[in-house]
Parts: sequence; structure tokens; C-alpha cells
Amino acid sequence: MDGLVDMRVGASVRERHRIRSGAFSGPTAGLAAGNVQANLVILPRELAYDFLRFAQANPRPCPVLAASETGDPRFPALGADLDMRTDLPLYRVWRNGELVEEPTDISHVWRDDLVGFAIGCSFSFEEALVEDGIDVRHITCNTNVPMYRTNIPCVSAGVFHGPLVVSMRPMKPADAIRAVQITSRFPSVHGAPVHLGMPASIGIADIAKPDYGDPVPIGADELPVFWACGVTPQAVIAQVKPEFCITHAPGCMLITDLRNTKLAAL
Amino acid sequence: MDGLVDMRVGASVRERHRIRSGAFSGPTAGLAAGNVQANLVILPRELAYDFLRFAQANPRPCPVLAASETGDPRFPALGADLDMRTDLPLYRVWRNGELVEEPTDISHVWRDDLVGFAIGCSFSFEEALVEDGIDVRHITCNTNVPMYRTNIPCVSAGVFHGPLVVSMRPMKPADAIRAVQITSRFPSVHGAPVHLGMPASIGIADIAKPDYGDPVPIGADELPVFWACGVTPQAVIAQVKPEFCITHAPGCMLITDLRNTKLAAL
Repeated sequence: MDGLVDMRVGASVRERHRIRSGAFSGPTAGLAAGNVQANLVILPRELAYDFLRFAQANPRPCPVLAASETGDPRFPALGADLDMRTDLPLYRVWRNGELVEEPTDISHVWRDDLVGFAIGCSFSFEEALVEDGIDVRHITCNTNVPMYRTNIPCVSAGVFHGPLVVSMRPMKPADAIRAVQITSRFPSVHGAPVHLGMPASIGIADIAKPDYGDPVPIGADELPVFWACGVTPQAVIAQVKPEFCITHAPGCMLITDLRNTKLAAL
Repeated sequence: MDGLVDMRVGASVRERHRIRSGAFSGPTAGLAAGNVQANLVILPRELAYDFLRFAQANPRPCPVLAASETGDPRFPALGADLDMRTDLPLYRVWRNGELVEEPTDISHVWRDDLVGFAIGCSFSFEEALVEDGIDVRHITCNTNVPMYRTNIPCVSAGVFHGPLVVSMRPMKPADAIRAVQITSRFPSVHGAPVHLGMPASIGIADIAKPDYGDPVPIGADELPVFWACGVTPQAVIAQVKPEFCITHAPGCMLITDLRNTKLAAL
């Protein structure tokens, strides 16, 4: 392992400790650059098999990086000292589908029957696109990525079912082709696009009106390119209204010790 | 869909029907060429979450192609009319770790609390190697692939833990490099090799004495190349001795409607 890698793994640990101490409670974009950040979902054990099965059957919207032991708040594969109860800046606690609390620590609501899932996030592939010189519009605009509900059904599993939600990045055709190549290398963070060029055919009536996030300008020489989005599992869970559930707050992700480059399939 | 694909999807359905009728109960190698064949594991629901989590954490030895609904003997993603109770030529039924029966149909022991897992098998990547002109030694020798227990621990999950089991194919260095490229494209059927060239360093004392399968000759100009093997989850389950478990009998796989080419990551 070279010095650079050690230094950056150190950065992820330092950021988690800063968050754990309460010194930081904001969005994590740009923190510990080069490290994988993850969506967090915590559910009661009774829903765990079906949720993990939903993820297995829908790997593009729901790429699982780690699933915890029952009652164990750690993800040893993502960081030796990582504790999912304290290491995210902001959480959302849900009861029967209602948002009841937005704490910076969930130790007070932790239960022995809970399991956690860390799910890949688009930050990793966006970093690879930017490094390749591709304009990622919402980053340029400093807004949230536009997201849309589609008419593409996910494969259902037990109580979990619902439509695929996609994120969109407008690109010139040559960049779109290059983006297919780059993101295909990262199947564990959504992988290749699911669609490009014809939003109406996947049930998107008005590209200027995303269902989540903010609209972005699309040039006359650009195609909208769509990736499966980590909001999909959250939307699916929201429909199920589990008795109890905890998620990260939007943009406030779990910072892991994994390097983005380690996720490359090839 | 072109005529060739239709014809071959038809072949997998025809082979499953022939097996279902009892007209065939032998090894499936070479049947419905070009179609994905799978290992089968059936466990009680209470072990399902931890087993699926074991698979998620160990995707190279345990690449899950499909996980069933509780009590549902179908894998809709692998074949519309597929029934895991009747569509494999030969099964093994285990109680508390003991092999108690080797039937051609498991309808009489099916229970409403069972879940099935279809796990990718090396037939798919071996087909790609052979098509590329690489000599796959145990196929040339018409023997079973040599397999070895290693000193590499799997990531444990609940009760499931144990060492990685690998299969070995000897190759000239240029072919080994090409085989890395080819199998990297197929992460859902074990993916890239886990080791090559130095068996002692992964705990293999005598390459001429595999723990499972048959030895193969290795030329002086060849390196042993090792892939994670689907025997790993079976060995791990055997250690746990679940109250009840059903697996395929060796070589008697589940023939699916999926085409091998559809598994390619890139």
C-alpha cells in the first residue's frame, strides 16, 4: 500500500470521527475525496431477507455494499471502527411511514433486532466522469441531481415493489458513449445507464419537472442520460411503511474506507 | 429477438420438461448450450437472511442469480415456467448435515418455509474460455475440475463461515492473462481468478491432490490458475448442519432460460 492510499484512508476515518463527535452535521459531498460514500437503510430483521432479495434482484438501483449482522451497528468491510449509529451527519427516523425525527445520532433508538444496509451511491461514478473531463451538469450548476419516477417496474420481493427511479445527466452524444463505458466499470454504484435519449418512452412526461431534486439545463446538442438511482429503495420502503426504519438524511452519506477505484469491475 | 435466440431459449425449456417428466436424470453439462446453468441451495427461511448476506459478502464463490420468495418454488427471473422442485435431474436432501435421500423430484419434501437460491456456476465462463480457443484441461481430459480448500477465509455472516474453495485450470501465461480478461466480464459466475501461480501461498500443499474432483496434468510451461468455486457455499452449509437443506446433486444443475452472453458485465 503506498503512502497516498494510507493518507486518504486516514481522511475517511478522520471525517467519521469529526461527524461522530458532533462537530459536523452537513452534506458529505466532497469529503474524503476518492472514498466510497453510501446510502444507509436500517430495517427490522423481519424485513431483512425480503429487502436484501429486492436488492439482489434490482442491483442497478440497489447495489448493496454491505449488510450487517442482526443487532450489530458495524460494517467491518467498510471500515474497522465504523459505527452506523454515530458516523453519519444526519439521519431520518421513520415510524409507520411517517418521518418522526431527524437526529445527528441514532444510539437512543437503536434496537437489537435492527439490520443495516449500505447501498452504493452515484458520487463514486460521478467522480470518475469528472476525472475523465465529462461535464456533470448538476455539479457544474451546484444543485441536486434531477430524479424521475419511471414506468419501469422493479422486480418485486415480498412486500417490496415499485417503479424504478432514475437520475439524469445531460451529455453530448460522444460524452454519453464515453459515460456508458466509464460507468459500466462500476456495477456496485449503479453501473451503466438504464436509458438515454427518449424520456417519454420510460414514462417521463416533462424532463423540466423532476420528481426529486432540481431541474438542469439541457443543450440542443445534448441527450438526457439516465442512471438507476438510490432513491428507488427509499421510495419502495416509503410505500411499505414499515413499523420502524432509519435512513440517512438526503446528501448526508456514510463515508467508508473503500476507495472508489476498488469498485471497478475491470 | 432473432430466431437463433428463440430456438435456444426453447432448448432450455425442452430440457427442463424432459427432466421434469423423469426421462432424464444425469449430468447437465452440454445441455442447452449457451444457456446459464446454476447451483441450487434450498434452506429454511430462518437461515435465509444470513445466507443471502453471506453470498453478498462473498460474491466470487457465491454469485446469487436469484433468491426465491418464501415457500415459492419458482425463479421467475430464470424461466417463466421453472419449478425448482422438479426441474433438476437429481437432488440431495440433507437433515442435520446428513445426506438422507437423493431423489429426482423434491415435491414430497417441499415445505412452505423454504427458500431457494440459484447460484452461478463455472460452466458459463468455461464456455467463454473454450470459445476463445483456451484449453480447459479437465474438459479436454473429460474429468471433474480439481478443487482445493484454501487458507483464505470467507467473510462470515451469522452462522455461515469457512474457507474459500477454489477450482484450478492450468494455463500457459499468455492464456492465463487472456483468461483474466475473459472471466472478469462474468462477475455473476465467479468472475476473475482469485490467485495464480503460487498454490502454497493460499494453503494448497499438494496441487496433485485436490480436495474435491480429479487431478489434471500441469505442463512445465503452465501456471495453475484458481477461481472461486461454487462448492464454497455447499462446504459452508455442510459445516452449519442445518435442520433441513436441499441441494442439486453434483453436476446435475438447474438449466435456466438466461443466455451466458447476458451475464457479461462489459
